[in-house]
Amino acid sequence: MDKEVTIYDIAKDLGVSPTTVSRALNNNPAVNVKTKNKIYQAALAMGYQTNVFASNLRSKRTNNIGVIVPRLNSSFQSSVIAGMEKIANVAGFNLIISQSLESKDKEIANALTMFNSRVDGLIVSLASNTESLDHYAPFFKKNIPIIFYDRIGDFEEVFGVTIDNMKAAYEATSHLIRQGCQRIVHVLGSLKVNVYNERLSGYQKAFSDHGLPYEDNLIFHSDLNEEAGYEIVQKIKDIKPKVDGLFVSNDACAASCIKHLKLEGYKIPKDIAVVGFNNDVISRLVEPNITTINYPGYEMGEIAMNNLVNHLNRKSDSVLERKNRITLPSELIIRESSKKN
Amino acid sequence: MDKEVTIYDIAKDLGVSPTTVSRALNNNPAVNVKTKNKIYQAALAMGYQTNVFASNLRSKRTNNIGVIVPRLNSSFQSSVIAGMEKIANVAGFNLIISQSLESKDKEIANALTMFNSRVDGLIVSLASNTESLDHYAPFFKKNIPIIFYDRIGDFEEVFGVTIDNMKAAYEATSHLIRQGCQRIVHVLGSLKVNVYNERLSGYQKAFSDHGLPYEDNLIFHSDLNEEAGYEIVQKIKDIKPKVDGLFVSNDACAASCIKHLKLEGYKIPKDIAVVGFNNDVISRLVEPNITTINYPGYEMGEIAMNNLVNHLNRKSDSVLERKNRITLPSELIIRESSKKN
Repeated sequence: MDKEVTIYDIAKDLGVSPTTVSRALNNNPAVNVKTKNKIYQAALAMGYQTNVFASNLRSKRTNNIGVIVPRLNSSFQSSVIAGMEKIANVAGFNLIISQSLESKDKEIANALTMFNSRVDGLIVSLASNTESLDHYAPFFKKNIPIIFYDRIGDFEEVFGVTIDNMKAAYEATSHLIRQGCQRIVHVLGSLKVNVYNERLSGYQKAFSDHGLPYEDNLIFHSDLNEEAGYEIVQKIKDIKPKVDGLFVSNDACAASCIKHLKLEGYKIPKDIAVVGFNNDVISRLVEPNITTINYPGYEMGEIAMNNLVNHLNRKSDSVLERKNRITLPSELIIRESSKKN
Repeated sequence: MDKEVTIYDIAKDLGVSPTTVSRALNNNPAVNVKTKNKIYQAALAMGYQTNVFASNLRSKRTNNIGVIVPRLNSSFQSSVIAGMEKIANVAGFNLIISQSLESKDKEIANALTMFNSRVDGLIVSLASNTESLDHYAPFFKKNIPIIFYDRIGDFEEVFGVTIDNMKAAYEATSHLIRQGCQRIVHVLGSLKVNVYNERLSGYQKAFSDHGLPYEDNLIFHSDLNEEAGYEIVQKIKDIKPKVDGLFVSNDACAASCIKHLKLEGYKIPKDIAVVGFNNDVISRLVEPNITTINYPGYEMGEIAMNNLVNHLNRKSDSVLERKNRITLPSELIIRESSKKN
């Protein structure tokens, strides 16, 4: 094999100092972008490769940050990850990404892989059947910081980034009630997931605050995917007295419900007013446009990663404050699918 | 700091052999899933951590595979990555993911980071302004395998996984012509991207094979996002003789075009028949449902990763055959948006 290229070779070739080359390759902000790009291109052209193994042994850092999500092919999660990657990349960290596919066992295996890969930090959104954080204990024990987001369980001892799901659901439900709806079906995922549990509380509180009776048979648990729309509508048809409102915990499923409601002859919003969740592209393109909760996935990813990177870059051995909560604003966006008046 | 936990401690604790523990932690298929899970949980509970630095120094492998994509928050790319992650995870590899944000310069920086992280292999979909593969030369030189997918440029010397974009566009355009369309606008991205270049050839060939004149002013270049729909429709209104067909290179943009065409009073498909691309969820939920090309992102991710992992697991120092092409089947799915007859 060829002799390894060193930073001295690159410096000589470009007529800059070895210090500048070293700083550029470590993504140091002291080097301007133009010089950095010149050095990157020369390093690549000459085949320079950092001795990452030796450097990791010295620094005990890998510059890798692990991310565990329930599913990668979700509009919400891909926005979150895009936001994370942007921040991590600028700060000189790589993202190692895995998905639990909503399985607790796979999440445990993923956590072990991340731990063994010696990630410098971890960002997690929990699988729907994860009921304990025992598999993260080794991270806590070694002071490897973990930030949870969105699906953070109901654990007190975590650094979590979320929206106020209860408030969001309260506003969505209250809006439907103000439009004259009294029989509102709420479609959501497993109550083991904090996100859905809190939304149900918000729905219930809206009913109670408006002096309306809460009925268990109007709560549907679902996978919230495109296919679920058909089944939900079949169930709605059978309910007496008639359903007049529908609050679905994501926009793709809400759009699918609207499609099947229309096929059954329902007028939206006249017969049934509909509210979704997430403010996905789809909510603005189906007819009628869907009233929804704006849920800032990209910003959630940026904020979670920023907090982790800032913590890692503090040179001290400080421990991540595990009871922190960051609550991002969300807002109800009213569109045609729910405007009865 | 505590004494490091070893595989002998785990073996003793569980009453199994150290070999079994070692195999399980290396994800060896000889150990059954139940035992593996038991060992994973014990390893996590006891705080066992592979000495990945020393192990990497010995094996010269990191078990990390790099992935560079143009954008993470795209419905197509998130499906691809979900498919990749599934295969990599089972085979015991981690995914390191970065996005070029459609910038050649960022792609060069990403490539250098991946090279310095000593990824065992790389999977790439190119940024729209990437015009050379020079920044991948160090990988080729060191025999680090690279597989390109979807956006593979027009480089001969790459292992590429794609669909037959020319054929797909030929079928979509021919279908519109058979429905009676003669003035078909084609909306696509930059012709520097092989994907769009090939689709334009398919569109042109369909016109030529049906004895229809090809007109340059019916070709619109666009970012193909939700916002583009409005502008596209404004341009369509001004074209004489009237446009009667529209073939858009992704479904979200096609859905946005349909929305704005309807707002301008056009009937779909009577006035303008529409075909999209990708078979995203959105194509089945807007009205009318959109005729589209089924584009198997998830399978594309699985196949690219399978080929890379199989190559890496061949113990020999074999070089990845760089002229290989894998072409996945795609198909036209005809729905209401284009059925004039």
